Amino acid sequence: MIVSNREVMSEIAQKFDSLFNPRSLTLVGASANQYKWGSVILSHIITGHFKGKVYPVNPKEKEILGLKAYSNVKALPETPDLAVVVTPPFSVPQVLQECAEKGIKAAVIITAGFAEVGAEGEKLQREVVNIARKSGMILVGPNCFGIISTACSLCAIMPPLFPKPGPFAVVSQSGNIGFSIAQRLNSKGFGISKLISYGNEADLHLEDYLEYLAEDDETKVILSYVEGLKDGRRFFETAKKVTQKKPIVTLKAGCTSAGARAAKSHTAALAGSDAIFDSVCKQAGIIRVRDMDEIFNVGAALLHQPLPRGKRVGIITAGGGWGVLGADACINAGLSVAQLPEETIKELDSLLPSWWSRGNPVDLVAGVFGEAVMKSIEVMLRCATIDGLMLLNLSPLLPRGIALVSNESSDLREQLKAFADSLAEVFEQLAVLVAKYDKPIITASEFDGGYIDAQVSRLAVQKKIPYYLLPDHAATVLSRLAEYAKYRRNLSPHGS
Amino acid sequence: MIVSNREVMSEIAQKFDSLFNPRSLTLVGASANQYKWGSVILSHIITGHFKGKVYPVNPKEKEILGLKAYSNVKALPETPDLAVVVTPPFSVPQVLQECAEKGIKAAVIITAGFAEVGAEGEKLQREVVNIARKSGMILVGPNCFGIISTACSLCAIMPPLFPKPGPFAVVSQSGNIGFSIAQRLNSKGFGISKLISYGNEADLHLEDYLEYLAEDDETKVILSYVEGLKDGRRFFETAKKVTQKKPIVTLKAGCTSAGARAAKSHTAALAGSDAIFDSVCKQAGIIRVRDMDEIFNVGAALLHQPLPRGKRVGIITAGGGWGVLGADACINAGLSVAQLPEETIKELDSLLPSWWSRGNPVDLVAGVFGEAVMKSIEVMLRCATIDGLMLLNLSPLLPRGIALVSNESSDLREQLKAFADSLAEVFEQLAVLVAKYDKPIITASEFDGGYIDAQVSRLAVQKKIPYYLLPDHAATVLSRLAEYAKYRRNLSPHGS
Repeated sequence: MIVSNREVMSEIAQKFDSLFNPRSLTLVGASANQYKWGSVILSHIITGHFKGKVYPVNPKEKEILGLKAYSNVKALPETPDLAVVVTPPFSVPQVLQECAEKGIKAAVIITAGFAEVGAEGEKLQREVVNIARKSGMILVGPNCFGIISTACSLCAIMPPLFPKPGPFAVVSQSGNIGFSIAQRLNSKGFGISKLISYGNEADLHLEDYLEYLAEDDETKVILSYVEGLKDGRRFFETAKKVTQKKPIVTLKAGCTSAGARAAKSHTAALAGSDAIFDSVCKQAGIIRVRDMDEIFNVGAALLHQPLPRGKRVGIITAGGGWGVLGADACINAGLSVAQLPEETIKELDSLLPSWWSRGNPVDLVAGVFGEAVMKSIEVMLRCATIDGLMLLNLSPLLPRGIALVSNESSDLREQLKAFADSLAEVFEQLAVLVAKYDKPIITASEFDGGYIDAQVSRLAVQKKIPYYLLPDHAATVLSRLAEYAKYRRNLSPHGS
Repeated sequence: MIVSNREVMSEIAQKFDSLFNPRSLTLVGASANQYKWGSVILSHIITGHFKGKVYPVNPKEKEILGLKAYSNVKALPETPDLAVVVTPPFSVPQVLQECAEKGIKAAVIITAGFAEVGAEGEKLQREVVNIARKSGMILVGPNCFGIISTACSLCAIMPPLFPKPGPFAVVSQSGNIGFSIAQRLNSKGFGISKLISYGNEADLHLEDYLEYLAEDDETKVILSYVEGLKDGRRFFETAKKVTQKKPIVTLKAGCTSAGARAAKSHTAALAGSDAIFDSVCKQAGIIRVRDMDEIFNVGAALLHQPLPRGKRVGIITAGGGWGVLGADACINAGLSVAQLPEETIKELDSLLPSWWSRGNPVDLVAGVFGEAVMKSIEVMLRCATIDGLMLLNLSPLLPRGIALVSNESSDLREQLKAFADSLAEVFEQLAVLVAKYDKPIITASEFDGGYIDAQVSRLAVQKKIPYYLLPDHAATVLSRLAEYAKYRRNLSPHGS
């Protein structure tokens, strides 16, 4: 049941309502040939259980995938909210014209072969935009993977992905990168609100989507992949407003000349100066990340952790090596490794063996387990010189005797259950401490370097504790959070 | 059956034979209390099916874990090749003295509380070393996790790990980092030859292990984690010789002042100047990596791929975004994105749709599958301006119709089998091309951002094609390989 009420919506929400909450859609270029995108995308719309009506348009077929097909848009029995277009490029202007005449208010043009292929394609693209603008229709694309909107179970997209609803919006100039990010969010158990593959941004630009997502209640964090900006000034102004409401995490590609060339032929994007983009991000409060791991890692932490009040990190590690790497990682990420006041060291003295290193990183030394570790964590969180906690190697937090050993005589399934139950409890206790002290805890640990780590990762998401494999990941995330927190603090009139 | 023949061994192989191929060992400090390391380690030795005799030593117990226990080393019925020592630090000199008198030739001292805890521990450590050296005994540690030697199924180590034999030696100053690397190698299906957690390197130094591993036939690639060097000059001279025989991949920690402080209290290591270490690596042909992912990624590629003849990379991508990120990653890693000669472009013209970008990265554009992709790969490998190939997003190499879709009506297990079979064939075909053109292929692709990626990763190892999740990983690996190749070329008198 779709419940959006256009009467009480803001102007921008109204504008995008046909796109993200359509009551009905037409797929123009629907096909009965399973190898054509017109069949693949229709099957994804059906498999995704789209909540509205679907009208396939195909000049020859009577029925496609069990749905009555129509010979053209004019022939449709009602005016659908949304048109998804997959016909060849040269046919798109006419299709759009018919959509406009039918009164359709939004279209997703998946077809490629426009501005990204040169002057002729650019001309075709202008034609398409003119038709849309004259009629007040909004356009996604062309040259894109399509969109997903989980509120109405709409999966109008090239590769198969049927995510559950969740707090992340993914806005990507590249279809495959947007897809990868959304897929990973789904695999880890997060879910998404919207996936927008915006391609050539002929009509709607990145800035329009950002404006919309800022007001979208289903979206808590915006993850974006950018190759080039159409209008740097507008991007800056828009992002600056949006980041006051919710975080934008951005991966920018085309940073090198070879990358910029590739971007031009990919989405007709002008990558521009990387230094300028970087400074725009800093001034607009955008959290810029370096790769696909990081966009995901930072997003996950933003969702569930309070922002740190500064850059001073406390490190608790089981295993000295992790601690050394963790300290290096903090410094390299622009954080500082907190000095522990005498009282904190005293408190830890009462919890740890006499030969502990009496400094930060706090190395738990072999043989400290369970309760003593949890108490040490609380001591560190309470410490006034610590703004955020990095927890490296979670094994000692598990009850003694919980170990995962794979050999012929062990029942790994039994072990895994006990392991997962214990770890769930540990994550729950950590989440309680996070709330109590209003400071972030980021964990990094590797259990088996494979399958079990993937399971732990899903568990951590459920329990709202960020979990990564490497200390470097944890430090980078804490650093990004600290920078965003500083930006937000500086905006506030009271500096708090 | 242990078949080493000490008569025909080199001096260094003889020296280490008692350590890595012991016919018998004693665990001094063996315990019946399951929470003590003396019990845990004994159980690992037993579970690992050590091929020789095991003599637990404990002053009180008659039997531990089903093995007859002895009250002290003197009481043992024979002279074991190896002693593993887990008794408290103050008792270690006496234990070592007894081992020396018994004629034991090698010892692993797991016990901590030596040079890493300050002046008193340092004195104790010197005492222990003196005893060993006087008797000609070699010592691993103290303050270490122990060792694994798969040739004789010896797992004398604190955490549970029972790896299969394989071509990687892991030499680590940190026990937990060495363990993580070895565990990951095992999870991915590689296996290891030796794991050496060398701790405080009181007697045997990193350089000794490197010398030994250079001659060890079971070891093809050496992965090492270093916090600080005892003797930089010797390290340089040794590494220079070893890297002419087999690659050394090194992760150095303690690069920042905070990290160096942590290293000092961890393994008593003096981290030294990072710039000097870096220049030593360059001049000695050591492949230096930045994190735990990279040490693993580079190791995997060294094992199965030919070294590239230069830094010019060809990129084939399914999905423009991956291509843009891949091109950026190459440049950032110090590689160049190869210019394609006219003839290569012509050959690709005959394989790809007319609107392909006619440049490198070669974007396959949606709709190119299977055979055409494999042929494009061969065209690129044949191209004279390309030294190595990066393959981004493997999906189009799979036959059409092979897709992984998880929903209520699909049988994911059936799908997975077809998927894995197809992918295995793809990897096999790629391996044939690698051999035919003697150029490396590195792949990066994400299938589900979770479980399936882990499966693909194992499959890739079996089929000897390096597979990573991100373009950045692939580019970094290619760059490290190219640097090592250049180093090796420059050494050769004919520059070839």
